Amino acid sequence: MNEAGVNKAGTGDAGGGRTVLAVTMGDPAGIGPEITAGAWRALRAGGGPAFVVAGDDALLAAHAPVRVVADPSEAAAVFADALPVLPVPLAVPARPGAPDAANAPAVIASIARAVALAQDGRVGGVVTNPISKLVLTQAGFRHPGHTEYLAELCGVPGQAVMMLACPELRVVPVTIHVALRHAVDGLTTAEIVRCGLTTAAALRRDFGIAAPRLAVAGLNPHAGEGGVMGDEETTIIAPAIAALRAAGIATSGPWAPDTMFIPPARARYDAALCMYHDQALIPLKTIDMAGGVNVTLGLPIVRTSPDHGTAFDIAGQGVADPSSLLAALRLAGEMSRNRRSA
Amino acid sequence: MNEAGVNKAGTGDAGGGRTVLAVTMGDPAGIGPEITAGAWRALRAGGGPAFVVAGDDALLAAHAPVRVVADPSEAAAVFADALPVLPVPLAVPARPGAPDAANAPAVIASIARAVALAQDGRVGGVVTNPISKLVLTQAGFRHPGHTEYLAELCGVPGQAVMMLACPELRVVPVTIHVALRHAVDGLTTAEIVRCGLTTAAALRRDFGIAAPRLAVAGLNPHAGEGGVMGDEETTIIAPAIAALRAAGIATSGPWAPDTMFIPPARARYDAALCMYHDQALIPLKTIDMAGGVNVTLGLPIVRTSPDHGTAFDIAGQGVADPSSLLAALRLAGEMSRNRRSA
Repeated sequence: MNEAGVNKAGTGDAGGGRTVLAVTMGDPAGIGPEITAGAWRALRAGGGPAFVVAGDDALLAAHAPVRVVADPSEAAAVFADALPVLPVPLAVPARPGAPDAANAPAVIASIARAVALAQDGRVGGVVTNPISKLVLTQAGFRHPGHTEYLAELCGVPGQAVMMLACPELRVVPVTIHVALRHAVDGLTTAEIVRCGLTTAAALRRDFGIAAPRLAVAGLNPHAGEGGVMGDEETTIIAPAIAALRAAGIATSGPWAPDTMFIPPARARYDAALCMYHDQALIPLKTIDMAGGVNVTLGLPIVRTSPDHGTAFDIAGQGVADPSSLLAALRLAGEMSRNRRSA
Repeated sequence: MNEAGVNKAGTGDAGGGRTVLAVTMGDPAGIGPEITAGAWRALRAGGGPAFVVAGDDALLAAHAPVRVVADPSEAAAVFADALPVLPVPLAVPARPGAPDAANAPAVIASIARAVALAQDGRVGGVVTNPISKLVLTQAGFRHPGHTEYLAELCGVPGQAVMMLACPELRVVPVTIHVALRHAVDGLTTAEIVRCGLTTAAALRRDFGIAAPRLAVAGLNPHAGEGGVMGDEETTIIAPAIAALRAAGIATSGPWAPDTMFIPPARARYDAALCMYHDQALIPLKTIDMAGGVNVTLGLPIVRTSPDHGTAFDIAGQGVADPSSLLAALRLAGEMSRNRRSA
């Protein structure tokens, strides 16, 4: 490839001006293959990014016409006719609903391949299909989760921040997959500030918002109501808000959690910093059950994923809804374009 | 009044077949008077219950034509032309936005009057306007809150259960106005069971649901995911579900809190038992910010209230939205009718 070609690929713009993303295989026994084919059908004619799958071509060929490619730069040209695949072969054929630890190395290799392509600027970003942590752990995977593995691959361990986004709302849970008791005990000013700084930077660079506005939720009912129902708003959250403001970020709160997600409140911020998992996830999923996208902030690359799991129980039945993967692809495409034009 | 008349009043059906409710004054410096007038304008022509206000007639006359009545049985006949008022005089004139503890005795007397009318069966239920606990406390009010006072007046202290209802969702928070830390520490099997039994009984008697279905939320993310993120689902919540089922109530759960409020999940239950305030209030308010109604279950009388406070900051400006009070009136009317036909 000549220098001009590398530059093009380096922007994730592999010909024709269309952003090309890398999609991981996910667990081959889950709904990943069929929703990937569904997303390709929705995007093949244009109106969104193109993508290449780092995966097993025979697996995907069961759901869509496939074209094996050697480089993401070939993807845009074939995308209207076939699903472009960068081969990452499975060890054993996948059976829908019956995950097999023998395929775990291929699942992991798919992630590593996609991340490497994004780090090299050959794709605009990575969109990951769902994996089963249980299956990967059986095969020796030693990372706490998908996102942590991506952060390690990118050389920024511990720096990832999770955002859930739908057209109406963006939420960032400051504590995530821990018991509610530990979320309360583990809440710290430093972690709220870290999440806020990373979120504001991403809103500027990836979402095209020049002066992002953060809204910080309280922890307690009515945000503590002046200390009558808990004091974490005063002792932990208010100092974080002050620190974020001192860093030049328009930050409001702490807000009463129950009223901060109604439409007029949402209009006043670009992202809500939430103190625990369900404070963020309940409003997001209640508002948009199918279109929520998981976005990993704080990485050097763009990464999104659908907001659901492997769904082994319905895999292979042709009933899986590709909406969230499609939304993840569209959002990654937008983020990649914003990052290029920033 | 003859026996027939008492029977009619005893059903809250004071002539013409229209349910008559008692509305309390609430804090006279809040938005209560203006939203009461707004609700009267919306209901005067029919299509919902009539009501009588236990309040100061001069206060209300500033917002609507008023007719002083001696008994709720007179209310239906005058309702199309004027707002019926059972006089409970203020000590000093109310100034919007400037609450005065001198009027606290009248605010309290209004509540007591309305409850007595409902206990005597002279109205179909009580709809309360917002009060300021701070103002009442300054005047010597010694009850933890509005609902607790109503439970005491009704002779059932400690037996009230709070439900929030909108057309799309009913939620019952098992713990309410306590710090999140204390909600986690204070969650008990017994209290979940008490709330479930009271909720199921109310769904049958007041909501006309012969075989109510309860959905019980988990406490932790993903309902603990098999104990990986907290064990309260196993140690506290599952035994409560078993006890409710043993009592013959169709009870499901513990459900992952973030996905149990999406439309297909909501279709599978009549009320959600939630483990803490914001788990219940976030989805309710996010779905229906203006139409939520607070319903007190476990009382011998029907009681509803709007899902907002006194709003001293906007009182007297004519901008207060009567939607929630109106929804509270309509729901109390339906509950009263269901109770009569049960």
